[in-house]
Parts: sequence; C-alpha cells; structure tokens
Amino acid sequence: MPLDTSIAARLKRDSAGLVCAVVQQYDTGEVLMVAWMNDAALAETLTTGRAVYWSRSRQEMWRKGDTSGNVQWVKSAELDCDGDAILLKVDQHGPACHTGTRTCFEAGGSLGAVVAEQS
Amino acid sequence: MPLDTSIAARLKRDSAGLVCAVVQQYDTGEVLMVAWMNDAALAETLTTGRAVYWSRSRQEMWRKGDTSGNVQWVKSAELDCDGDAILLKVDQHGPACHTGTRTCFEAGGSLGAVVAEQS
Repeated sequence: MPLDTSIAARLKRDSAGLVCAVVQQYDTGEVLMVAWMNDAALAETLTTGRAVYWSRSRQEMWRKGDTSGNVQWVKSAELDCDGDAILLKVDQHGPACHTGTRTCFEAGGSLGAVVAEQS
Repeated sequence: MPLDTSIAARLKRDSAGLVCAVVQQYDTGEVLMVAWMNDAALAETLTTGRAVYWSRSRQEMWRKGDTSGNVQWVKSAELDCDGDAILLKVDQHGPACHTGTRTCFEAGGSLGAVVAEQS
C-alpha cells in the first residue's frame, strides 16, 4: 500500500529519501533506538501494526523482528514540526538492540556529560 | 574545547559530519525534539551543561535558548550501539518547539497509525 498522499506531502526527506524515527517504549518512556524510514517503510508501519524501517547498512526494508523475533508493535506515530522526524511509540518484544541490551543507548553507554547548576 | 578524542573516535557521522540527537525530558520521559550535532556542538553539550546543536537550516552553532530563553539543561548523554545517535536527557525550560508547543511532536501531530492485536 503506498503512503497516504497527505502524509507524504508533509515529509521532509534527506538526500537518501529518509526520515528519522525515534522509537520509544510506549508505557515506560524508554527511548529504545533510532532508525530510518522511506515512504514505503512508513506506509507499512502505519497500516500493519508492526514497525518497519529502511536499513541503511543493508539497503533493504527491515521489518523489525522478522529475523530476531524482537518485534515492535506500533502504538502511535507522530510527525515533528518540520516533517523530518517521527516519534514511534511501540511495545517492544525482547531487546531492541542487536547487541542484546534493552535499548541501543545502554549498549553505547554514557558520554560523561557535565551537569551544571541551573540558573 | 575540542571533543574528547576517545569520544570522537566512536562517532559515525553522516556526510555532513553530523550525528542525530534525541532530546528527552529527564523526569517525565517526553521526547521533546530531534536535533543534530557536529563535534564542536557535542563538545560544548558535554562540558558546559547546556544543550548545543548544529542548525542545519541556519548552518551555524545553536546554543538552544540563547534567543528564545527556552534553555535545555543537560542531565546525561548516551551514545547508541553504532555511534550515530545520541540520547540527551535534559531539563527543558519552557517549550522545546519553536511553534510554542512543549514538544515538536505535539506540533506535528498524529499520523493515525493502525494498532494491531499483538500475537
């Protein structure tokens, strides 16, 4: 199914035709990962109940969980103010990260930011 | 201050030299916005206690809140598993979005995703 034309008209894609998807666990608020969508991946995500991305490394559609079993069930999708990022709330089955951690940010870890006293 | 070399070595930058930053309110878990950082913006973010980005539209450093007053106080920064995205937890002063809404995803709104029954 092609992407709804009224949604397609609102997207601001990068030079590769992609928008950024921020994937958040819908109930705990954990940010699980960042992935990328082309129009076809977004259309599938919005209509099938499963999160589908465009894999930049493999250059193919990536229906998350088809290989790993770690499916993401879509709860909602929102576009940002300028049309280049999507917030996808999901129910993540198992770990989100290919390294086996719950989130991809646990896998990478802290960058040791200085916390200032707020003025 | 230049970016710590051990952090710089872990980044996987896009063709414009940028990594994606997902910005989350540290206590409520709201995803506020997505922005972009070059090495200099990340270095300032990690060392000054304030969120600093690279504005792709203006092609300049963007120390969030300098114009609007809507400062982001950094609480933590984590890199993802493959080095191309950062999760920045902040305390957002005022609205995050230039449209005046709390988050940039409130501004863009729902894309009407179908929610499937989980199997």
